[in-house]
Amino acid sequence: MDERAALAMIGTRLPGAGDDCAVVDGQVLTTDMLHETTDFPDGTTRYTAGWRAVGASLSDVAAMGADATAAVAVYGAPTFEADALTAFVEGASEVCEAVGAEYVGGDLDGHDEFTVATTGLGRTDEPVLRSGATVGDVVCVTGTLGRSGAGLRLFERGDDERANELFRFEPRVEAGTALSGIATAMMDSSDGLARSLHQLAGASDCGMAVETPLPIDDSVDDVADGSDERLELGAFFGEDFELVCTVPEDEVERARTATPCPLTPIGTVTEAGVTLDGESLPDRGYSH
Amino acid sequence: MDERAALAMIGTRLPGAGDDCAVVDGQVLTTDMLHETTDFPDGTTRYTAGWRAVGASLSDVAAMGADATAAVAVYGAPTFEADALTAFVEGASEVCEAVGAEYVGGDLDGHDEFTVATTGLGRTDEPVLRSGATVGDVVCVTGTLGRSGAGLRLFERGDDERANELFRFEPRVEAGTALSGIATAMMDSSDGLARSLHQLAGASDCGMAVETPLPIDDSVDDVADGSDERLELGAFFGEDFELVCTVPEDEVERARTATPCPLTPIGTVTEAGVTLDGESLPDRGYSH
Repeated sequence: MDERAALAMIGTRLPGAGDDCAVVDGQVLTTDMLHETTDFPDGTTRYTAGWRAVGASLSDVAAMGADATAAVAVYGAPTFEADALTAFVEGASEVCEAVGAEYVGGDLDGHDEFTVATTGLGRTDEPVLRSGATVGDVVCVTGTLGRSGAGLRLFERGDDERANELFRFEPRVEAGTALSGIATAMMDSSDGLARSLHQLAGASDCGMAVETPLPIDDSVDDVADGSDERLELGAFFGEDFELVCTVPEDEVERARTATPCPLTPIGTVTEAGVTLDGESLPDRGYSH
Repeated sequence: MDERAALAMIGTRLPGAGDDCAVVDGQVLTTDMLHETTDFPDGTTRYTAGWRAVGASLSDVAAMGADATAAVAVYGAPTFEADALTAFVEGASEVCEAVGAEYVGGDLDGHDEFTVATTGLGRTDEPVLRSGATVGDVVCVTGTLGRSGAGLRLFERGDDERANELFRFEPRVEAGTALSGIATAMMDSSDGLARSLHQLAGASDCGMAVETPLPIDDSVDDVADGSDERLELGAFFGEDFELVCTVPEDEVERARTATPCPLTPIGTVTEAGVTLDGESLPDRGYSH
C-alpha cells in the first residue's frame, strides 16, 4: 500500500485526520518525520535541518490559519556531537522565533539514520480546513514556488551556501492568521502546487482551474533547463511551504492587503477537474 | 557525547526543557521517538507498539499532573501494510481512550527501520515539576515496578502473548491529576526508579533515601533469577511508566486516597545522596 492509500485508510478510522493539523479543543497539532536519505541532501547543515524540520510543522499550523504557539523535535542520530546539536537547536529556535512561537525542546534518540520528528502546536478558534472551497472562489498562493526544487539542484551542483538559504523558509504563520476568516479553504504546498490543488479540490468536492504565469521563484529560473523543468520545479516538486488557499472573489483585495507577503491569484474554483491553462494538471508531486 | 550529556547541554540553551513535558501557555507538550532495534523486541505486535509508543508520551503528560488532551504519532516503516497500520492505530487510539484523550492521527514516513515518533498534549494550570521536593517529603511510587523488564524476558523466552500484555500499560493520567496540588515533585519512571530518584534529587537539589520492600510487580518474580535480577528489573531496567513523586508527610494519606491506583511510600527526601536501604544507589538505568 503506498503512503497516500495508507493515509486514506487511516482517514476512515480517524475522522479528525486529513487536514494539515488536527484540531482539538481550540488547539491545532501536527507532526512530521524527516530523514537524511529523503529530506536532507548532502550539504544540508544541521542549522538548516533544525530550521526546516521545525518550519515544516509550523507551516502546517499556518495552513490552519492558526497562531503558532510552540514546537518540539526529536533529534535522532548515530552520535550526538555538540556542534551539530547546537546548530540544530539554533535553527529550530530561530524558525520558531521568526513566527512568534517558542521552541521548547524535545528528545534525543540514538538512531542509525539522521531522523528528525517535529511537532507544531497552535491556537485558533476558527480553523481553516481544506473542505470549504466554493465554485467561483479565487485560488491564491502566497510567496513564490519552487525554492526547494531549486535548492536541491544547487546542492547537486555543490553550491551549498545558496542551497541552504533556499532550504530555510519563513513559515507563513502571519499570512495564515491574516487569511483566517477570509479564506474558505487552505493548505500548504508541501506536496507541490499540483497535488495541493487536487487535495483541496477533493476535500471541497470541486475543481480548480489555474493559469500561468504562476509565481515561480527567481531561483528556479537560475537552475531550470527550459520551461518544462521550470514547471516541474515550480508546480510539482513541492516541499515549498507556501499557502494555497481559496478566497471569495469580493474578498481578494482584502485578503491581499491583510497578508504581509505577496498573495497571487492564480485561478478559480470550478465544478470539477484540475487544470492548468485549460489542460488537465496531473495529480502528482512529492510523496514523503 | 552521550545522550545525557547532550540533553544537559541542550538544557542550558532551552530553559523550558528538562521536565517530562514543556509547559507553554497552560498546555504541556512532549515528544518521543521509539524504534525497532531498541524499543520493540521481536514479537511485539503493532497493536502493542501503537499503544506503548503513544502511552509513553501520555505518561509524560501524566508526570506533569496534567490532563491528557490528545496525541499524534508518526509511523515510519519500510512498507505500509493495512493490517499492521490498522493495528497500530487501534493501539494508539485505545491507549488514548483509556485516559480520556483523543488520538488525532499524525503522519506516515517511508523509513528503513520501524520508527515511531509520538507527541502528547495536555492541559494544566498547575504543572508539577521535578524541582519542588523538600527535605522530609515522602517519596512515593504508583503501581508496581518492573513490568517492562519482565516483558522483555518473556519476549526472549517466546511467551509473546504475556509479554505484549506487560508491554501495554495504562498511563497514570488519573493518578497524575489527582496528585497535582499535592505532590511537590514528580516524573515518570521511564528511565528506571534509580535514575528517576537521581533526576528528582538533582532537579530539587536534595537527596532521596528509599527502603525495601519496593513495590515490584509479580511478573518480575516469575522471571527473575534471584534477588539481584529482581532488583535489576524492578529498580534499574526502567521503561515502566509509573509516577515517582514526593509528597509532604502530612499529605500522604490524602494523596493515597485521591490516587485511583496503589501509591506506595518508599522513602523520604533527605539533604543529599540517593540510597537504598542505606547503601548508595547507582545512577544508572535505561538510556534511550
